[in-house]
Amino acid sequence: MILEVAILDLKPGLTTEKFETTFKIASTIIASIPGYISHELQRCIETPNRYILLVRWQKLEDHTIGFRQSPEYQQWRSLLHHFYQSFPTVEHYEVVLHNSSNHEQEK
Amino acid sequence: MILEVAILDLKPGLTTEKFETTFKIASTIIASIPGYISHELQRCIETPNRYILLVRWQKLEDHTIGFRQSPEYQQWRSLLHHFYQSFPTVEHYEVVLHNSSNHEQEK
Repeated sequence: MILEVAILDLKPGLTTEKFETTFKIASTIIASIPGYISHELQRCIETPNRYILLVRWQKLEDHTIGFRQSPEYQQWRSLLHHFYQSFPTVEHYEVVLHNSSNHEQEK
Repeated sequence: MILEVAILDLKPGLTTEKFETTFKIASTIIASIPGYISHELQRCIETPNRYILLVRWQKLEDHTIGFRQSPEYQQWRSLLHHFYQSFPTVEHYEVVLHNSSNHEQEK
């Protein structure tokens, strides 16, 4: 499994509500791509208008080729990229360690 | 639930094996802190010697006060911080959206 990490900085002055609503619509696009496992969008507490997007893919190419070279990616870009200050920095990671407490069900 | 995100850049020339072994030992420290839910360490594919640490806490203060002001944090720092190029950038996030496919069990 591969973790895609993207830091998303919105243009100053944009309302986060509009971005979040649009992101929820766009989510159906990424969730339809082969190799997609899950994704989460989280809003930064310390930095206004910053989000982190975490997407889990079965393998690297599911994102870099399967999604990025698909017609669906053009829809995704068209819906979302005008919100961003610049093209987001995206990196991919491989798990080294993952641990959960016995209380994870409380989350 | 709060997501703590830390980008960890190791000093050039360090072996990742040594860091990863030490991190596994240190993991028992963070997992013992009240409010801890889970954590994962992931290794960057594009940038050598870069890791991301994702820690889920029940609330912000479980990390910023409960952990950072504990004797256990001094042990954590002593084990890990000498591996890092500089003090890691740490931010906290709140979930906006979390979606999983029906295939998540495949991961």
